[in-house]
Amino acid sequence: MRLATLDDGTRDGTLVIVSRDAARCLPATGVPTMQAALDGWARAEPILRALSAGLDAGQGQVFDPAQCMAPLPRAWQWLDGSAFPTHGALMQQAFGLPPIATDRPLMYQGMSHRFLSATQDVPFPSEADGIDFEGEFGVVTDDVPMGCSAQDALGHVRLVVLINDWSLRSIAPIEMKTGFGWVQAKPACSVAPFAVTPDMLGDAWADGRVRLPLTVAVNGAWFGSPVGDAMAFGFHDLIAHAARTRDLPAGTIIGSGTVSNPDHAVVGSTCLSERRAIEMIADGTPVMPFLSFGDRVTMQAGDWFGTLNQHVVAGAS
Amino acid sequence: MRLATLDDGTRDGTLVIVSRDAARCLPATGVPTMQAALDGWARAEPILRALSAGLDAGQGQVFDPAQCMAPLPRAWQWLDGSAFPTHGALMQQAFGLPPIATDRPLMYQGMSHRFLSATQDVPFPSEADGIDFEGEFGVVTDDVPMGCSAQDALGHVRLVVLINDWSLRSIAPIEMKTGFGWVQAKPACSVAPFAVTPDMLGDAWADGRVRLPLTVAVNGAWFGSPVGDAMAFGFHDLIAHAARTRDLPAGTIIGSGTVSNPDHAVVGSTCLSERRAIEMIADGTPVMPFLSFGDRVTMQAGDWFGTLNQHVVAGAS
Repeated sequence: MRLATLDDGTRDGTLVIVSRDAARCLPATGVPTMQAALDGWARAEPILRALSAGLDAGQGQVFDPAQCMAPLPRAWQWLDGSAFPTHGALMQQAFGLPPIATDRPLMYQGMSHRFLSATQDVPFPSEADGIDFEGEFGVVTDDVPMGCSAQDALGHVRLVVLINDWSLRSIAPIEMKTGFGWVQAKPACSVAPFAVTPDMLGDAWADGRVRLPLTVAVNGAWFGSPVGDAMAFGFHDLIAHAARTRDLPAGTIIGSGTVSNPDHAVVGSTCLSERRAIEMIADGTPVMPFLSFGDRVTMQAGDWFGTLNQHVVAGAS
Repeated sequence: MRLATLDDGTRDGTLVIVSRDAARCLPATGVPTMQAALDGWARAEPILRALSAGLDAGQGQVFDPAQCMAPLPRAWQWLDGSAFPTHGALMQQAFGLPPIATDRPLMYQGMSHRFLSATQDVPFPSEADGIDFEGEFGVVTDDVPMGCSAQDALGHVRLVVLINDWSLRSIAPIEMKTGFGWVQAKPACSVAPFAVTPDMLGDAWADGRVRLPLTVAVNGAWFGSPVGDAMAFGFHDLIAHAARTRDLPAGTIIGSGTVSNPDHAVVGSTCLSERRAIEMIADGTPVMPFLSFGDRVTMQAGDWFGTLNQHVVAGAS
């Protein structure tokens, strides 16, 4: 089952179910928003699956992904992991960082009051901030109690999403050095239009990981397509880590961190910073610049989540 | 004007205006919740002020602070500063930390989907996590555009609140060392029942700072009462810092960080960790233990915000 949120002029939009071929959709009668679906998943799921079956039988109206907001245009919580060890090792080697303990997941608390749609322009105050993207998979949970085990956490994964975690690399190390984590370096993320139930992914969802290549292009040029299952910790481990000292509200989004594979020389990367780290390790200096206003970044994972296709633009300064 | 949120069984409660003597209140007719007030402050403020004038003229029903939720039981964003240089200097000295640059505010992104009421028990999974409190002042904003200046930011401060930022000190340094900031170390905060407009504070609100002592007691014993105006950066500076690369949604809560004064030998502290740091600097070892299940922590600032009065209890483990 595939869900999306249509822009109706309100902050939370209108929930729709989208057909497998993404050509048609049906409004989720009785379940007005994605948040409402997640708040009452046990009630909502049979309604949504019945509508989805109708779609497969040919019902529905024409679907236009350009009318979509992020699946959750705002969320009560966004926690982003950094679960790909290749990415961490490359960053540590290039920047001479001390190694980070690998016995527990890495995770930061991100801003969650706004997730950009897959097509809207992304405003930043300054090119000097080192504008970068990060291709990630994410999961959306229902209500998770404090102390939830990793084993139980898998059952709280209701949806899988594709995320571009926009990052400002000139600010990031300044904020990391304080130990307080990122605020200015992590503005709003963008999310691809479709949120997909794990069962629909079939074999591409296994062991709490997404076994799909995440393909990134910059200004139309292929940049990378590493596969999402190379996580040192699965999403269930990330959820249990987050829930150790707090409950997680329905609609919590948990990110994988930048998708990265050991054979990056072949499959490329999903963020500029990792590419620059590889260049620094090889030649002593980074070559590829960060983004400029007007640059376009696209991301997709097959046709499962739809396409992120956005321009970086000048915002308030 | 003083606002509070009554527990009506819903997640966001019912907004009420509270009289100066906190004996009576009136429901905010036409403005159902605190979030609604902040989302449309220009419309809501005259309604609320008219009701407040009626309260001052003797209208209203009996008010019971024990029926209150946090003023905002959940918020779209919580960003906590660390703006008291005395606190930072003590922690650096005691733990041999490298100095942090003082030319920009310190701030972390905290969890915002749940703020505990002033009287509910506070569940933690383990006493071994080093359970601590932090007494803070905070402000609540309306919508702040990206790039807002510090000067303009003062006009976006709609409410002032009193916060206990519960912290787990055994986890904090592990998470700080990663540079990713805190997740497990910072569970839900508690907020005193009254949110107060800056004008009501009179001389106690000046230069974006709260000129009131914040009094903390542990199991009934005085622990500290430092004054809130010793911030190196005012709340307007903190708001501008947060808004440099993002908009802030209405209902964003910005915290001062642990209130701390240079004459801590006289006025005490507002967190156990600072007290322990002072003990370490003086005698080489901390004496005062962190909290145990059953311990009670109270906080107040005169009678402006009401009283935080909570027990620490065993939660899911």
